[in-house]
Amino acid sequence: MRTEAGAVHYQLLSVPWTVLCYYAEDLCLKLPLQELPSQASNWSSRLLARLGLPNPLLDEVPDMPPEVYSCQFKVSKLARFLGSDNQDTFFSSTQRHQIIFEILAKTPYGHERKGLLGIEQLLAQGVFRAAFPLHDGPFKLPPEGPQAPRLNPRQVLFRHWAQWRQWHKYQPLDHVRGYFGEKVALYFAWLGFYTAWLLPAAVVGTLVFLAGCFLVFSDTPTQELCHSGDGFWMCPLCANCPFWKLSSTCTLVQVGRLFNHGGTVLFSTFMALWAVLFLEHWKGQSATLAYRWGCSDYEDMEERPRPQFAAAAPTTSLNPITGQDEPYFPPTSRFRRMLAGSVLVLMMVAVVVVFLVAIILYRAIMAVLVSRSPNTVLAAWSSRIASLTCSVINLVFILLLSKVYVALARLLTSWEMHRTQTKFEDAFTLKVFIFQSVNFYSSPIYIAFFKGRFVGYPGNYHTLFGIRNEECAAGGCLMELAQELLVIMVGKQLVNNAQELLCPKLRGWWQKCRLRAKGAALTGAQEPWEADYELLPCEGLFEEYLEMVLQFGFVTIFVAACPLAPLFALLNNWVELRVDARKFVCQCRRPVAERAQDIGVWFHILAAITHLAVLSNAYLLAFSSDFLPRAFYRWTRDSQLRGFLNFTLAHAPPTFAAAHNHTCRYEAFREDDGQFSRTFWNLLAIRLAFVIVFEHVVFSVGWALDLLVPDVPEAVGIKVKREYYLAKQALAENEALS
Amino acid sequence: MRTEAGAVHYQLLSVPWTVLCYYAEDLCLKLPLQELPSQASNWSSRLLARLGLPNPLLDEVPDMPPEVYSCQFKVSKLARFLGSDNQDTFFSSTQRHQIIFEILAKTPYGHERKGLLGIEQLLAQGVFRAAFPLHDGPFKLPPEGPQAPRLNPRQVLFRHWAQWRQWHKYQPLDHVRGYFGEKVALYFAWLGFYTAWLLPAAVVGTLVFLAGCFLVFSDTPTQELCHSGDGFWMCPLCANCPFWKLSSTCTLVQVGRLFNHGGTVLFSTFMALWAVLFLEHWKGQSATLAYRWGCSDYEDMEERPRPQFAAAAPTTSLNPITGQDEPYFPPTSRFRRMLAGSVLVLMMVAVVVVFLVAIILYRAIMAVLVSRSPNTVLAAWSSRIASLTCSVINLVFILLLSKVYVALARLLTSWEMHRTQTKFEDAFTLKVFIFQSVNFYSSPIYIAFFKGRFVGYPGNYHTLFGIRNEECAAGGCLMELAQELLVIMVGKQLVNNAQELLCPKLRGWWQKCRLRAKGAALTGAQEPWEADYELLPCEGLFEEYLEMVLQFGFVTIFVAACPLAPLFALLNNWVELRVDARKFVCQCRRPVAERAQDIGVWFHILAAITHLAVLSNAYLLAFSSDFLPRAFYRWTRDSQLRGFLNFTLAHAPPTFAAAHNHTCRYEAFREDDGQFSRTFWNLLAIRLAFVIVFEHVVFSVGWALDLLVPDVPEAVGIKVKREYYLAKQALAENEALS
Repeated sequence: MRTEAGAVHYQLLSVPWTVLCYYAEDLCLKLPLQELPSQASNWSSRLLARLGLPNPLLDEVPDMPPEVYSCQFKVSKLARFLGSDNQDTFFSSTQRHQIIFEILAKTPYGHERKGLLGIEQLLAQGVFRAAFPLHDGPFKLPPEGPQAPRLNPRQVLFRHWAQWRQWHKYQPLDHVRGYFGEKVALYFAWLGFYTAWLLPAAVVGTLVFLAGCFLVFSDTPTQELCHSGDGFWMCPLCANCPFWKLSSTCTLVQVGRLFNHGGTVLFSTFMALWAVLFLEHWKGQSATLAYRWGCSDYEDMEERPRPQFAAAAPTTSLNPITGQDEPYFPPTSRFRRMLAGSVLVLMMVAVVVVFLVAIILYRAIMAVLVSRSPNTVLAAWSSRIASLTCSVINLVFILLLSKVYVALARLLTSWEMHRTQTKFEDAFTLKVFIFQSVNFYSSPIYIAFFKGRFVGYPGNYHTLFGIRNEECAAGGCLMELAQELLVIMVGKQLVNNAQELLCPKLRGWWQKCRLRAKGAALTGAQEPWEADYELLPCEGLFEEYLEMVLQFGFVTIFVAACPLAPLFALLNNWVELRVDARKFVCQCRRPVAERAQDIGVWFHILAAITHLAVLSNAYLLAFSSDFLPRAFYRWTRDSQLRGFLNFTLAHAPPTFAAAHNHTCRYEAFREDDGQFSRTFWNLLAIRLAFVIVFEHVVFSVGWALDLLVPDVPEAVGIKVKREYYLAKQALAENEALS
Repeated sequence: MRTEAGAVHYQLLSVPWTVLCYYAEDLCLKLPLQELPSQASNWSSRLLARLGLPNPLLDEVPDMPPEVYSCQFKVSKLARFLGSDNQDTFFSSTQRHQIIFEILAKTPYGHERKGLLGIEQLLAQGVFRAAFPLHDGPFKLPPEGPQAPRLNPRQVLFRHWAQWRQWHKYQPLDHVRGYFGEKVALYFAWLGFYTAWLLPAAVVGTLVFLAGCFLVFSDTPTQELCHSGDGFWMCPLCANCPFWKLSSTCTLVQVGRLFNHGGTVLFSTFMALWAVLFLEHWKGQSATLAYRWGCSDYEDMEERPRPQFAAAAPTTSLNPITGQDEPYFPPTSRFRRMLAGSVLVLMMVAVVVVFLVAIILYRAIMAVLVSRSPNTVLAAWSSRIASLTCSVINLVFILLLSKVYVALARLLTSWEMHRTQTKFEDAFTLKVFIFQSVNFYSSPIYIAFFKGRFVGYPGNYHTLFGIRNEECAAGGCLMELAQELLVIMVGKQLVNNAQELLCPKLRGWWQKCRLRAKGAALTGAQEPWEADYELLPCEGLFEEYLEMVLQFGFVTIFVAACPLAPLFALLNNWVELRVDARKFVCQCRRPVAERAQDIGVWFHILAAITHLAVLSNAYLLAFSSDFLPRAFYRWTRDSQLRGFLNFTLAHAPPTFAAAHNHTCRYEAFREDDGQFSRTFWNLLAIRLAFVIVFEHVVFSVGWALDLLVPDVPEAVGIKVKREYYLAKQALAENEALS
């Protein structure tokens, strides 16, 4: 497709049978040998079928592709393959696309030594505007009726996958794979799998939250606090602030108890194990799908250089694998550029940290200002107001910074001159992921692990830039964390979904306008290639994966603070899945099908997050929650927790009280002289022991699961061997002896 | 080979060229396509070569096999393979053995449905006495001289590998692989690699030990103790024992300091990282060798049932892979048998534990008895004498129990009816490994982690079966652990090596006598098959691996206690390697070459041990060593450690002192009323924090190494791709378009 002086010229390519056969063998495409009875691929439908219950999730999708034993195609054994008598249907449309793309990608258009070859470079240089496979017709459904025409594959996908009302049905993954290829299908399989796993987490999380609502009113320490009246005068929260009564924070503490009670401990443990189990089962699911789709042994052995690399490479050199001359960039220079790139990443991280400190100072100053206001209600809620506004400002900055950074990372990674697309993507992913995780997680991490720990004690407060370090507001830091989390996570999701819904529409509309303004006025029916050309180019799955992985981090790492996180994630994903499906079916050009064995580097990132989540939950429970002090008090002093409130409050040092003419209490385990008390050390030992036990138990369980649950399910293993056996028989040449 | 009425009949089998070709393709044997310049396979020789230094480890071994690119053999492409013009040398001798064995193993001798097939069943039923490939001539070297004949491969191995004087040379691994196959070669490669890695550990360990020797005399607390005279009267060690002076244990404490000083901390950290690095690099080395030997993609797809399984299986059933009828044992019955087996394993473990408790009681009673003896020297060393005799008794029992158990485990695993040899071996390995690790490690673990922790305090001692719980003797438990370790580890090695040296000789001599007595008196020269028949059957590598893996456990798990462990391991392995080599070359029948990709389940066991080692070192340093209390004292009280001794000793409760008319001290951080002091809790928090930091740092470093060091070295990765590319070219059939 080419435009010259405004007019768009289209070229429709097709490939003859012999060429198809040649390249199918060259590309090691797998083709069917023998059909086998189709089985339900997910356990829920298997379970329901065994119990004889109707399955509301099941959807009757037409044209179900059969399950087959397949093997690498060999022209010489053509007759042994299933369906080889019909040359029109033997190769699927995605396989044809792959073959055409392979031919186009390899064809030289200039001097081959200079790496002038392939459609991608021509596209990059603007010789062609676009190159894409055609969609299989329009996606709009024909009017229903008794003699309605057969739906085309795109319509099938639209009707049974991309429509909102399909929200409670299984995805027709085999169809998605047949239309978009394995890589896209694996993304949707993963997203669906993740969403399904979020369901139990969301249910348990909501129950835990509701349990918290009931427990608030039966909690002895909270009641003691609310009924304490003038019992506890607390030390001032800033240099010139007044003394205050603990009972004035009653409501806040009650709200705080919603997020911080015994159930949270159970839920954190549950979620840590949930994450481990989720990954284990995804491994099995991924292997099953890869086998089912014939890519379990797919590995890209001879990846071509990226077109941008080939165009910009300064020299050529022999490829050690093929022995041919190809564009070359010295690894030492690349290493130097990568070092320079890392420095830039560090600088961007530093920007985030500086911003975080600014937010902290702002919050401290705000709290002081508001608390001095004459309005008493406002004063009591001062820190809450300050932190809520902060969270919102934080979110806005995070979203802005992430836009800037993704653009920067793309530039930087191009400049690093990675030879292959895979290497490029890995480097890009790593950069963006590191930055985005610092960007999104730094302020929750600060609140969870640092805030309120370096306060000092009355008369000896620690300061940062002359401002007293923040204390956790009444109700504990966990509540603040929950608030921060909800604002960032839910806010991000809302912004993202709005973007994903609106942006393609706007861009699609803009693209249409632009093209139509340029081209002649179109009259009547469009050719399919014209219609497809007006769609948006497909942009890959990077952004989608990144968003989901960051969400997975929120759901697992900070779950101790907010049992509602899985619920919000679940709601988001229900929307997200169909939004993405619509994008692929309706709004984007059809991408060239790509093969893939699994979700690649994202799996390792998920595994790292899971590890982090276990650590983070352990520390949150041990240090930020008051679960352990309560258990300690219950065990050693009073099983009803009577007097617990008094137990947690230290007396201000006599010098401080004398200087202010007023004695006061503050939350800490300290002696009257400000030294840590024996109880503090005793509790600290218990907290640390809890961390050790929690980590070891969860990791051991994870490790045992890893051993017990095979990476490749047994049934799949047998099928793989059966397929190997059949393939060997089908392709055997030495029949001399048998 | 068959005996009838005493006489032994031999049958020599050989295979014609066409059959070789047919089976080579069927077995997916890899054969050479193209030679490539040979490179040094270990980094030390590469480094020395680059520095231009002579390499004393290098040995000029004749008939060095060339390094080649190879691919799966196809009869139709015979001409493309290297050396296919010479039918006598095209297939190596190990490949011929594999092919013959494959034919023999598959040939039915009765009704095939009943699984009556294969040489292994005939051997199991005693139809044949033995079936083995012949050695390539005698191993004895011909007299040297100018016109000495060319050495045969067995002589080459004997001269350049199995002789004691080769102890400082590289092993000729390519030759070993060429003669015994990849599985055996990988064992020796691993053993050599491990031994080489022990060298730096042994050097550092010895240096740390020597440093300890010097530090003893400059250590303030030890000097204070030795010069304390009557300063510290200690509480009695048993119910009716006398009070004793702390200064009387001066020598013991000095000895104890050898094993327990600042250097030990560094060394433990070093060894934890050493173990992690060792495994990482072995992965790379293993991948390199597997590639070099053409088994990197070897996987046994259609493993045959074990002959013992086929003989004992009650029914037949369709094999889901091949679709053929074969012997079958219901998985549910197997599962039940495995459960029963596990119970037996647990019972045997219980026996070990009971025995451990018996040893502990014996030691406590012995210590009391000896300490009451009028001889003062004897009394002072009483606990030392008791524990030394215990260690020896312990060792004897351990060795006896392990013999009993291995026999039992073999019976049990047979009874569990595992279908394939691999499953059988895995089950057997798991059983034996679990039992042996409990057997060997339980008493060191008791001493390291439990002994002396549940003593109580004067007036409130805890008891076990009425006997006061053991305290750590003066000098600390680390010293006892070091002693236990040296006795068990070194004792076991001595016993084992003596066994390995003497047993084959005795058994070989016995076998010869028996055979000669049966057969006719032999006169003059023996035929090669007669000579080989007189050798011992090859018994596999299980025992060898097990011994080494247990040693690896001693070296890594308890290294904090005994920096000399790596040195003893190194010395043992130098002997072990050549003993094993001699066994294979001189004393055993040649085994059928087996292919293998790596060392299999042992790698996972090593990885588990490495994990355990990190935990164990963390706890040993935190709780058994006095490194942290010293650091704490240095930091908070006196940087010269003056008064540290007094700091560690608590005063007996006044009631106890009054009852005995004598006040006394005891080692603990307790108040005068027996409660744990603030220092105790403070220190406990520090200890736990140390554990957490140590574990996280070491595991993070290990994880980072895992990411940074690729599992398959880059050079090997490129070679694999190059080989794949060449193979594709060589085997391509569809040249229609090119």
